[in-house]
Amino acid sequence: MKKTGLLFLLLASLTAVAQNEDAAFIKRISDEVFNNGKAYDNLRELTKNIGGRLAGSPQMYKAEAWGQATLKKSGADKVWLQECMVPHWVRGGKDVAVANYKGGKKPLDVLALGNSMGSGPKGVQAEVLKVNSFDDLEAKKDQVKGKIVFYNYKFINSNVNTFESYGDAGKYRGAGPSRAAKYGAVGVVVRSMSHSVDNNPHTGATRYDTAYAKIPAVAVGLRDADWLNDLTDKETVKLNMVTNGKFFPDTPGHNVIGELTGSEFPDQYITIGGHLDSWDPAEGAHDDGAGIVQTIEILRAFKALGYTPKHTIRFVLFANEENGLRGGTKYGEEAVAKKEKHVFALESDAGGFTPRGFGLEMNDEQIAKVKKWQPLLEPYGAGRLEKGGDGADIGPVADALKFPSAGLNPDSQRYFDYHHARNDVLENVNKRELELGAVAMAALVYLVDKYGL
Amino acid sequence: MKKTGLLFLLLASLTAVAQNEDAAFIKRISDEVFNNGKAYDNLRELTKNIGGRLAGSPQMYKAEAWGQATLKKSGADKVWLQECMVPHWVRGGKDVAVANYKGGKKPLDVLALGNSMGSGPKGVQAEVLKVNSFDDLEAKKDQVKGKIVFYNYKFINSNVNTFESYGDAGKYRGAGPSRAAKYGAVGVVVRSMSHSVDNNPHTGATRYDTAYAKIPAVAVGLRDADWLNDLTDKETVKLNMVTNGKFFPDTPGHNVIGELTGSEFPDQYITIGGHLDSWDPAEGAHDDGAGIVQTIEILRAFKALGYTPKHTIRFVLFANEENGLRGGTKYGEEAVAKKEKHVFALESDAGGFTPRGFGLEMNDEQIAKVKKWQPLLEPYGAGRLEKGGDGADIGPVADALKFPSAGLNPDSQRYFDYHHARNDVLENVNKRELELGAVAMAALVYLVDKYGL
Repeated sequence: MKKTGLLFLLLASLTAVAQNEDAAFIKRISDEVFNNGKAYDNLRELTKNIGGRLAGSPQMYKAEAWGQATLKKSGADKVWLQECMVPHWVRGGKDVAVANYKGGKKPLDVLALGNSMGSGPKGVQAEVLKVNSFDDLEAKKDQVKGKIVFYNYKFINSNVNTFESYGDAGKYRGAGPSRAAKYGAVGVVVRSMSHSVDNNPHTGATRYDTAYAKIPAVAVGLRDADWLNDLTDKETVKLNMVTNGKFFPDTPGHNVIGELTGSEFPDQYITIGGHLDSWDPAEGAHDDGAGIVQTIEILRAFKALGYTPKHTIRFVLFANEENGLRGGTKYGEEAVAKKEKHVFALESDAGGFTPRGFGLEMNDEQIAKVKKWQPLLEPYGAGRLEKGGDGADIGPVADALKFPSAGLNPDSQRYFDYHHARNDVLENVNKRELELGAVAMAALVYLVDKYGL
Repeated sequence: MKKTGLLFLLLASLTAVAQNEDAAFIKRISDEVFNNGKAYDNLRELTKNIGGRLAGSPQMYKAEAWGQATLKKSGADKVWLQECMVPHWVRGGKDVAVANYKGGKKPLDVLALGNSMGSGPKGVQAEVLKVNSFDDLEAKKDQVKGKIVFYNYKFINSNVNTFESYGDAGKYRGAGPSRAAKYGAVGVVVRSMSHSVDNNPHTGATRYDTAYAKIPAVAVGLRDADWLNDLTDKETVKLNMVTNGKFFPDTPGHNVIGELTGSEFPDQYITIGGHLDSWDPAEGAHDDGAGIVQTIEILRAFKALGYTPKHTIRFVLFANEENGLRGGTKYGEEAVAKKEKHVFALESDAGGFTPRGFGLEMNDEQIAKVKKWQPLLEPYGAGRLEKGGDGADIGPVADALKFPSAGLNPDSQRYFDYHHARNDVLENVNKRELELGAVAMAALVYLVDKYGL
């Protein structure tokens, strides 16, 4: 009994010493990032010099070149491009939707959904049929033919975690056009997936069911959605809609990869990443410029501190998350083909907001291990460690090779104010919040690299 | 043994039932605030219709009238004004500081410090003496006479809790002018207490030591501070400074108080509050419009849910926190004079950002009790419960009557981007973050009202 007690005390004090050492090193990371950080300057370059960078666009190539140069400058031992064919959708012009009603005409603030097909230059003119849900659509299916269906499904305000509301409402953007086309609709207007106080429309990918006509589809700003909702309760409203979306043939895009070679396990990989592409209406500052510059900042900070990881760390700027996931898919395929050994992957793709914690896509034993590090993460605001939720880009490789992965969970209150909208710009990213996210990520990577999972 | 075990189980299950009931009620508060909240609309009225509302200004009186009306509209059983004499300082005109140097002239972005005395219309013209700290000032004290002292003390970036950096740097604004005047300085320029990426100067109160001349003093924006820092390393720089601050005689101001009468202990008080005054350069949206509208929102939500508290709850919009604390002082004095029994006070005066937790100004036993509620607060982002830190306005009453108090701790990363600067406007407050803060506060008040401390 006494012996066990001593052993316990010894182990406990060793653990305490280790935690003190780790706390001290993480504080050094934090000081380095807050005092000498380049994440915000890098984000300025990416957003202001390049801007929106949808797969296949000229800006995609600019962003790839910038990513290569910035990874090199930040100290990567090796930088390369991993090619993958990406879709090449273009908006093709200004999206227009004008409501015609008794009182006159009103242009609505709209954006064509990503991957949606244009109406043709003459546009579509039809009466609006408002539905509040898919159930409502089914109930009114006999009235759909020849109409423009207006999905007025409201983003749930009362979820504290706003991603739950996005998960709930997202189906109207993804499946709404084809479900309306099935009953003969000629166009679709979707209430934006947001709870913002402004009228900016929020785009994002839709997925046509090839069994039905690929009808034009737009997202509408919330204030205009409210207006249209009120008006359609009172009278018949017609809409003139012109969109110009189209696909060019797939084109080569690239994951941009930087590596810091491991000292003990150079052939075992830890991946950190975000996605380099972004929707066209804005600068993709939160989505996912933030994840990109945080990824690069961890590399820069490790190098500045002279930290050599045990495992090889890959800093990956993934291609084409938004409308194809081709970058993440390719990364997974190549890892499988090369029989790579991956030990961990971490993604930041939920905005550059103040960190709250991490989503842990791993088994309970591994989660328990991460939770022991909670006191080391909490000082940086990232102590909330929850099961589930890593990131779209690292999903394919982690699923294929069955290794633990995680996603940074920033505070979610503001994300859907900016997500896929024209105000996702540098000015709406806070330098310190962005940096604190990078610190939290670096801390977790440091701990996994040192102790394994 | 068995009996104790059963009793323990019984108590544990009763606790579990109570926690479930509490969790359910707090979720109802949250739903009410997110779905029907008026905090943001109220903040729009306060910021856009009234604006900056420094003690003694016409806007102070407008804000008091608005506060009375809004507390009534939100369901207070009783609303009244508690008079207190407040200082009446005015900026008196545009603050100017123009640097004269070899390369030419450069107007700096400055704001006179609150409570500082104007230079007179001719202003002061003098050479700049840069000091990086008070130690540096002491070392250079023989060079101070006739100069304008530039305090270039830098806000510490590496504190995760930015209030620590403010606590550290604040003395240069508060005591800097008189410490320079002691050695014969004719003016002072203070580097703004901020880590922002912009050049907005941040004002705030200074305190003259009456033993020395009341020399003019301004805060300068960070980019201009950097410029002046670089230039003074290279050459002699002169500054022409004109400020116009002055005091009018003290004038009557008011705490605006709304009450919800307690059902069991009507003569025992819980106070919730923020301060109604704000500096003049902006709208006082975060400081402390947020605290004001959160306070009112808790009243509105309790009424909307039909919740009758056991104790009488006072919703207090305090007067004159910024340059006198006369409102909080008066509230404390009157509570003492009337021998009121107060059980708890809660303040929000750290911005309308997403909540992190509460600072608990109470004894360890009471802190332990609050920590048992952590699982009820954490879902609303407010699970970090720390010893110390309530709020300036509730300090006098809590200190005098020795009862427990607390302050909402929102995430602090962005606060000093806006604090006392011209960008502390509605547009920089996020509706959901503001609401979530109100939910967290309401939850804590509900628990204290129900269980005591």
